Amino acid sequence: MAELPGGATGVGLVGLGTIGTGTVRIMLEHGGLIRERLGGSLELVRIADLDLDTDRGIDISSFECSSDWRDVIEDPRVELVVELVGGTGVAREIVIAALEAGKGVVTANKALLAHHGAEIYEIAARCGVEIGFEASVGGTIPVLRSLREGLCADRLEQVFGILNGTCNYILSEMDEQAEPYEACLKRAQDLGYAEADPSFDVNGTDSAHKLAILCGLAFGVQIGPDEIATEGIEKISAVDVDYARRFGLQIKLLAIAKRSDAGLEARVHPTLLPRESMLARTGGAMNAVEVRGQKSGSTVYYGAGAGADPTASAVVADLMELARSRKSGGVRVPPLGTPTLRALPLRRLEDLEGEFYLRFDALDRPGVLAHLAGALGDREIGIASLLQVEEGGSEAVPVVLLTHPVKEAALRAALAEVARLGEFRSTPQLLRIEREL
Amino acid sequence: MAELPGGATGVGLVGLGTIGTGTVRIMLEHGGLIRERLGGSLELVRIADLDLDTDRGIDISSFECSSDWRDVIEDPRVELVVELVGGTGVAREIVIAALEAGKGVVTANKALLAHHGAEIYEIAARCGVEIGFEASVGGTIPVLRSLREGLCADRLEQVFGILNGTCNYILSEMDEQAEPYEACLKRAQDLGYAEADPSFDVNGTDSAHKLAILCGLAFGVQIGPDEIATEGIEKISAVDVDYARRFGLQIKLLAIAKRSDAGLEARVHPTLLPRESMLARTGGAMNAVEVRGQKSGSTVYYGAGAGADPTASAVVADLMELARSRKSGGVRVPPLGTPTLRALPLRRLEDLEGEFYLRFDALDRPGVLAHLAGALGDREIGIASLLQVEEGGSEAVPVVLLTHPVKEAALRAALAEVARLGEFRSTPQLLRIEREL
Repeated sequence: MAELPGGATGVGLVGLGTIGTGTVRIMLEHGGLIRERLGGSLELVRIADLDLDTDRGIDISSFECSSDWRDVIEDPRVELVVELVGGTGVAREIVIAALEAGKGVVTANKALLAHHGAEIYEIAARCGVEIGFEASVGGTIPVLRSLREGLCADRLEQVFGILNGTCNYILSEMDEQAEPYEACLKRAQDLGYAEADPSFDVNGTDSAHKLAILCGLAFGVQIGPDEIATEGIEKISAVDVDYARRFGLQIKLLAIAKRSDAGLEARVHPTLLPRESMLARTGGAMNAVEVRGQKSGSTVYYGAGAGADPTASAVVADLMELARSRKSGGVRVPPLGTPTLRALPLRRLEDLEGEFYLRFDALDRPGVLAHLAGALGDREIGIASLLQVEEGGSEAVPVVLLTHPVKEAALRAALAEVARLGEFRSTPQLLRIEREL
Repeated sequence: MAELPGGATGVGLVGLGTIGTGTVRIMLEHGGLIRERLGGSLELVRIADLDLDTDRGIDISSFECSSDWRDVIEDPRVELVVELVGGTGVAREIVIAALEAGKGVVTANKALLAHHGAEIYEIAARCGVEIGFEASVGGTIPVLRSLREGLCADRLEQVFGILNGTCNYILSEMDEQAEPYEACLKRAQDLGYAEADPSFDVNGTDSAHKLAILCGLAFGVQIGPDEIATEGIEKISAVDVDYARRFGLQIKLLAIAKRSDAGLEARVHPTLLPRESMLARTGGAMNAVEVRGQKSGSTVYYGAGAGADPTASAVVADLMELARSRKSGGVRVPPLGTPTLRALPLRRLEDLEGEFYLRFDALDRPGVLAHLAGALGDREIGIASLLQVEEGGSEAVPVVLLTHPVKEAALRAALAEVARLGEFRSTPQLLRIEREL
């Protein structure tokens, strides 16, 4: 590759969307600081995007721009390629082409790494180049670095947290404002926290992508996002938020991974947490990840999980790290020095034991509660708390209960039994409780 | 240096106390995991301690042991030296001798780095070797790594947090159990959270050492621990904890550093925080550090700040990092790539503006409250809240008030005025409030 004057490291950027624009802005505004800390500058030598005309509030006239990403990879001055295109199609081509050209890669693309991480890590290792992807999980929070370096001497047992800012904003607003899901989603969209099509955020897919990446770093385990049991927040209603509060609980969308002798459990679903826990207290669009290790105990990492500036800050930090490695000749291969991720048997949700929140719409008939309690009791499912709400003039009466710990398969069987009673209007709302998190 | 078989990195350990023992234990128990993640093993080839006879619960018979630390440095197989002697005397000699012998150094010694950091970083840079000191601040929490790498692209503005587990345990117990300082200190000692002589912990010195190290990494600023305005928790009484609670506040020992155009402020003192804040919710002996950056916003790092296993986990992680750098030939120079720390004018406590908690022991005479309010009002010090507690049969009446934001110098002048009134039994209790943290 061609040397830039003054020992600068040449950077090429593909994808000038929100995070791309933020990345350019930080490289411009913090150029002096970067140069001082790095002992050499990062020089943005080429940008590629299909749209080079939209005004993004930054002046890109001094950069060589191109509508073809191949121009970035082929530019001999480019040592590091930033992929901010997103998705798993052309982004995969870009990343692989860059690695195979011996260029370091920085990406924020969680979908790409969740689906093709093993392939990409293997190519990076084979080509002897580094790939930085701190920005793909938890935005600005250096949680991947903490797993890969700070906790690398420990055997980790659990990683869990709030990984999607959109969902957390919606659930926090539902809790604080006592408003329905739709109104809070609308507000999230108005504020730019949620996209026009928010499906990938609210249905849990985005969290599952991030959890797959975390499992790779924390456990060295390869897991596809499709293997992660995933439920979104669309089915959470204002009454669930309200009832949870009455039990001292709060609903959050959690991504949870635990490793034990029985295998790996990995799941994403709305979860009722004690209101005083650190995760329950993670409000707005913030993210938080908790890690449990044998020696390190519990550590928590909290910060902005999205947004142009916070995410771009992580992108530029990765660029600095890769530039430092290249200058010193010490290139590190991800993740945790193990280029090959191993498969590990995944535990089925049905086999896990936990406490549950159940909300039934009972028909207003005598004996309904006794029948319900009987059906649960027959399967040895203990009721820890029960709330029956009188609603004047309504045909159905909400019955809310929290179970003692029970295997999910047993609960599901009992609920099938309950359905046969014919005394409830619809399928009950079922949510998982985690008190120990 | 002599090569070990199989590309292992030779480690020498000086100081086999609690953390030293924990370090040996992790290297033994997690040897396979370390080898896999590192792509090579860490081999402990020599241990030095003055006492090699005490049973520490681990088998050290297979290691070469010595009572002279020089044996460790001079051993040609030793590439990395772990200094866990503590203090600023012989520890400084050991670290400097190791660096000058071209050996990487890992230490948990905050006092040494706070007092001699600039000298040691300079020697490390000159000798082209790395020094890892993650364990010196926040125990197991990878906060130094996060500052040095995760947030290295950002201009940081504030770093603050709970850096001493002993103080946090005592203050948490005083709050939860409503017990006096002495009883909680005694319990901390019984549980091993506080040493027989707890002075350095409870008087804030330990927190000031750690804050000095954080200032170096966050701001590139050299600041001696003696320059940090430091108050301990010895003067906190059970009534202060109780009154704080009535105002919705909780007392924590905070270390606070802020950088602005006016200079750097760095202080350690008991602080009243909103009870719902993340730092107030950091209970027991846990630590938490919050960092505010221009682009990254607020990030929080939480975990065990002390204890053999958590701290040793950070020590071994540093060993792995240094071993990786040496194997790849890419040695990094601390901190943040700037071997020379700069001086920056320090702001005096008197010049800072803030809210205050004041507790007076008023003599039970008519007009006392009016005189107090008058003396404060004359200096334009606004009273935000006031609590006068009736205590039957007592000679003195506690008067507790919270001020509006005021410059500390103005408040001190007003309190001198109040003292001249002769209507109060003793110097008032003065504590600082931070609502924005």
